[in-house]
Amino acid sequence: MNTFGTRFCLTTFGESHGAALGGVIEGCPAGLAIDANFIASEMARRHVGDGATTRREPDVVEFLSGLYDGLTLGTPIAFIIRNSDVRSQDYAPLADLCRPGHADYTYEQRYGRRDPRGGGRASARETAVRVAAGAIAKTLLQGRGIAISSRIEANPMPAEGDSSGGIIQCTVTGLPAGIGNPLFDKLNARLAAAMMSIPSAIGFEMGARFAGAHLPGSEFRDQWCAPETDGTVRTETNHCGGVQGGISNGMPLLFRTAFHAATTLPRPTACLQRDGTLQTITPTGRHDSNHIPRTAVVVEAMTALTLADLIV
Amino acid sequence: MNTFGTRFCLTTFGESHGAALGGVIEGCPAGLAIDANFIASEMARRHVGDGATTRREPDVVEFLSGLYDGLTLGTPIAFIIRNSDVRSQDYAPLADLCRPGHADYTYEQRYGRRDPRGGGRASARETAVRVAAGAIAKTLLQGRGIAISSRIEANPMPAEGDSSGGIIQCTVTGLPAGIGNPLFDKLNARLAAAMMSIPSAIGFEMGARFAGAHLPGSEFRDQWCAPETDGTVRTETNHCGGVQGGISNGMPLLFRTAFHAATTLPRPTACLQRDGTLQTITPTGRHDSNHIPRTAVVVEAMTALTLADLIV
Amino acid sequence: MNTFGTRFCLTTFGESHGAALGGVIEGCPAGLAIDANFIASEMARRHVGDGATTRREPDVVEFLSGLYDGLTLGTPIAFIIRNSDVRSQDYAPLADLCRPGHADYTYEQRYGRRDPRGGGRASARETAVRVAAGAIAKTLLQGRGIAISSRIEANPMPAEGDSSGGIIQCTVTGLPAGIGNPLFDKLNARLAAAMMSIPSAIGFEMGARFAGAHLPGSEFRDQWCAPETDGTVRTETNHCGGVQGGISNGMPLLFRTAFHAATTLPRPTACLQRDGTLQTITPTGRHDSNHIPRTAVVVEAMTALTLADLIV
Amino acid sequence: MNTFGTRFCLTTFGESHGAALGGVIEGCPAGLAIDANFIASEMARRHVGDGATTRREPDVVEFLSGLYDGLTLGTPIAFIIRNSDVRSQDYAPLADLCRPGHADYTYEQRYGRRDPRGGGRASARETAVRVAAGAIAKTLLQGRGIAISSRIEANPMPAEGDSSGGIIQCTVTGLPAGIGNPLFDKLNARLAAAMMSIPSAIGFEMGARFAGAHLPGSEFRDQWCAPETDGTVRTETNHCGGVQGGISNGMPLLFRTAFHAATTLPRPTACLQRDGTLQTITPTGRHDSNHIPRTAVVVEAMTALTLADLIV
Repeated sequence: MNTFGTRFCLTTFGESHGAALGGVIEGCPAGLAIDANFIASEMARRHVGDGATTRREPDVVEFLSGLYDGLTLGTPIAFIIRNSDVRSQDYAPLADLCRPGHADYTYEQRYGRRDPRGGGRASARETAVRVAAGAIAKTLLQGRGIAISSRIEANPMPAEGDSSGGIIQCTVTGLPAGIGNPLFDKLNARLAAAMMSIPSAIGFEMGARFAGAHLPGSEFRDQWCAPETDGTVRTETNHCGGVQGGISNGMPLLFRTAFHAATTLPRPTACLQRDGTLQTITPTGRHDSNHIPRTAVVVEAMTALTLADLIV
Repeated sequence: MNTFGTRFCLTTFGESHGAALGGVIEGCPAGLAIDANFIASEMARRHVGDGATTRREPDVVEFLSGLYDGLTLGTPIAFIIRNSDVRSQDYAPLADLCRPGHADYTYEQRYGRRDPRGGGRASARETAVRVAAGAIAKTLLQGRGIAISSRIEANPMPAEGDSSGGIIQCTVTGLPAGIGNPLFDKLNARLAAAMMSIPSAIGFEMGARFAGAHLPGSEFRDQWCAPETDGTVRTETNHCGGVQGGISNGMPLLFRTAFHAATTLPRPTACLQRDGTLQTITPTGRHDSNHIPRTAVVVEAMTALTLADLIV
Repeated sequence: MNTFGTRFCLTTFGESHGAALGGVIEGCPAGLAIDANFIASEMARRHVGDGATTRREPDVVEFLSGLYDGLTLGTPIAFIIRNSDVRSQDYAPLADLCRPGHADYTYEQRYGRRDPRGGGRASARETAVRVAAGAIAKTLLQGRGIAISSRIEANPMPAEGDSSGGIIQCTVTGLPAGIGNPLFDKLNARLAAAMMSIPSAIGFEMGARFAGAHLPGSEFRDQWCAPETDGTVRTETNHCGGVQGGISNGMPLLFRTAFHAATTLPRPTACLQRDGTLQTITPTGRHDSNHIPRTAVVVEAMTALTLADLIV
Repeated sequence: MNTFGTRFCLTTFGESHGAALGGVIEGCPAGLAIDANFIASEMARRHVGDGATTRREPDVVEFLSGLYDGLTLGTPIAFIIRNSDVRSQDYAPLADLCRPGHADYTYEQRYGRRDPRGGGRASARETAVRVAAGAIAKTLLQGRGIAISSRIEANPMPAEGDSSGGIIQCTVTGLPAGIGNPLFDKLNARLAAAMMSIPSAIGFEMGARFAGAHLPGSEFRDQWCAPETDGTVRTETNHCGGVQGGISNGMPLLFRTAFHAATTLPRPTACLQRDGTLQTITPTGRHDSNHIPRTAVVVEAMTALTLADLIV
């Protein structure tokens, strides 16, 4: 439910305005050196961009277990990130209202109640935990020559008082062939689930993208390159995005994820009340007008967690 | 690995030219009436279309357990589908070759060996099991007023000796609000994984599609409709595709999946040999020139399995 | 639910008088040679003993998938065991009765209905599947130098028309140190669950047994032996049964399981009716007066499945 | 690995002398009132007894998430317990030594390294987390009329400078019939694993105990009582301990767990060095001479966690 992965797995917790968010990583091999500076630099990437929220959290990652002398022990690595810059009073008017385009209504239907402060568990603030854990997964992958990078492919300028979405491409190099599983647990299926689990994700596509559905088979299939002297196996194109039958083929992984714009805006909006009627309010909480620049590191983190789970 | 779901879950087995394929469904509630005619009609939908393979399997679903007097027992429902129309000799030349655009190479990298007959485990023939199990999941859902339908949105005509892909939209009505989970196990993440696990899937998108990434937040967010007299909660648009924060909001689920064309063609093609060199052959196995019409029922089946797992 | 293990895992299905029982093994490494004779000899061990039921099943294990040229493929290994010697009419009088000491009543409470023929899913006949899968697990373990043996330690002679239980000790040699996990997933916890999952198991104990609870710590703790020239680490006693902190220490695994006697007897017995009243009948089905000799191979099979899951 | 349960599940973390231990509970229903006093009183039960360690931890349970206005939210409940009374220097001499009867050696074999301070992850201090989480599980069970109690059945007086083990019986009343699963996931199998996961557990038995293996079937089987006016179904004896075929039958659950004595003693003891030779030291850390009185609450906590997982 709140756990990602089965071998290298992350369990997360925390509400936006609770005492802390955090995570527990199980299955990280012993002896891995954890670099606090690298983690801090990844956390800082979640704060970039002109359109980022004005909420300013130091996002210090405090480790509670699983480390000794700076190296992992093989036991669970627990860490917390304190919430400090909370202005919970901003949300008091929202306690009995469900905003449009948010999870207020669905959480109430699912659980019967919710924490109304700052979106509670549904706030994108939870991605801070993903980034911290992703930094550890990246450290593990880097030691095996696997690198993850991202690029923003579309991100329209938001109008004044409005917000914008975008598309982020992710590329993985250095992943050996043979990683992944057939049938339901395909590498591409795992990546799709990982990306679609990021707040505001609405689409995912591999290699040749949706446009690949229009290619004839003779063009789509990636032909083998002539043999290379070092034995490397490559294909001339990479329409499949590096995955065949659910298993990596040694070519770079290529995939794109589409994200919609943030749906909280400093504009009057009609909210649903418990009696089914609507009430118009103007939200006063702090939100992103453009979350795409800071979402890139989340895309990378989820990619790292997906791959770490498959290679440990 | 070969299991889909955690509560209503399907474990599948079988190679394309082995004795049989089959599945085991765990977690199906007791007392559900299984209609052999409905299952047969769903199986028949996997054989439709001018571009379907000429391999003709009766695809009789033989139940081995879990039923008594035509009703489920609550115990595992096992079934098998015998392979009968196998022409394994067609594949003898392929035993030491890896075709382009197939899983031959990746399976060898993953397992060290593979069954070369008809694609072995990687053959799309495994989808017969998904459809049989999906029919049972649909039966369960129908009893709760949940209906699944699909529509082909794009499917170019294949050229002679070539093959074509396409895009299939799926719609679910009758799903109540409150189904799904936050964070990693979002309903949309599950649907994405389910769709991407279907052979040849390359893209997935909810509601407003990739195009939704270009909408400003003020347009993207689905506004509440004025209250209805029967208390139904609806939104004016359905850009989110029926899911907010990973949980259903009571609107129809809407999503599309893109599939690439089949990559086996009756044309000369360069295959990879174990020594890294290429050898050109002309495949003689039977394959689909247009698999989209028959893939629609697979899309529905995986949707049904995804939802059954969440509502039991 | 009906699945044992997480890496080398067995899913089973089948009712005592249904078409077939069977299993699906996932996670067995590719390239393992499967010896049909060894499997048959293990199956035969389930039929030994004067006190075994007079039901005579050939128990032929029919493989449906996962094998090619006699070697495993790494894909799911499915097999079925047909039920042939069924005398379902023996059980017609029991359809509306719950016998004492059986799972009739609890299955009805759990599922609302049950298959009354021969105990249905609750029949010890399901252990045939465990033994078949256990034979494959043993094959895997043997290749790594791990051997499993059992010995009957107690098994009183049953009186005429009565039945008897007993205690079976199991020993594993060749298991290297370092296998198992801390906390909840301890090797001894896994073994306990595996043993207690066998029909009629009522007790489990490691090494020094329950009697070990009475030893002072100074006697209980297994002292290190003086160093051996080949570097082998051993202890002078083996009170812990080969497991420290949930992880194997390289000494033999030693544990015992207690089983109660079969509770179906050819004697008049009061059964519970749906209206809560009792009705006395004399069961006519076939049952074991002494199941201990044939349960030994089940103990070994479950041990093999437990260990295979930890070493793959 | 460090997670117990699948629906109401607890993930734990922490080393004995690290910053903190803690846990994350997933799957606890929303709306449950958490009573800090009850949790504190359960924690205090872990400190009782003359033979308890002289390490004195306040064991304050600090909640970080999952609660709002004193009620659960349905989201993960995370809590930490700080380590304060650590005397890590006591363990410096042990960094390169493996004590007899401890997990020092097996952790090193499993992970390649370990935290030598106070037993690290293998310390029984981790049971503090089980008790805190167990208190929440008990709260859930109490709301459904299910009560758990324990009784010490054997606990010899430890000699001076030595330690003692014992046997703890646990009883559960109010559990309805129909809880549990067939085959591998039997309620008794789950209880066995739960008990054997407690540090120093060496045996587990249901109802009639090991002695039940010596009873003839005619005596062992629990006969139905004459019908009661309120429809309650009961049996005359409870040899099966409340479980038939892996599923509760509505009678009280009855089981016993045997624990060996603590193996750290203030006496000279030969420890294993990395070169395979032995070195005799006298441990100076703080340990229990009699841990049985304080283990009773751990037995109850694990029982509560086992049952909560089955009823949510």
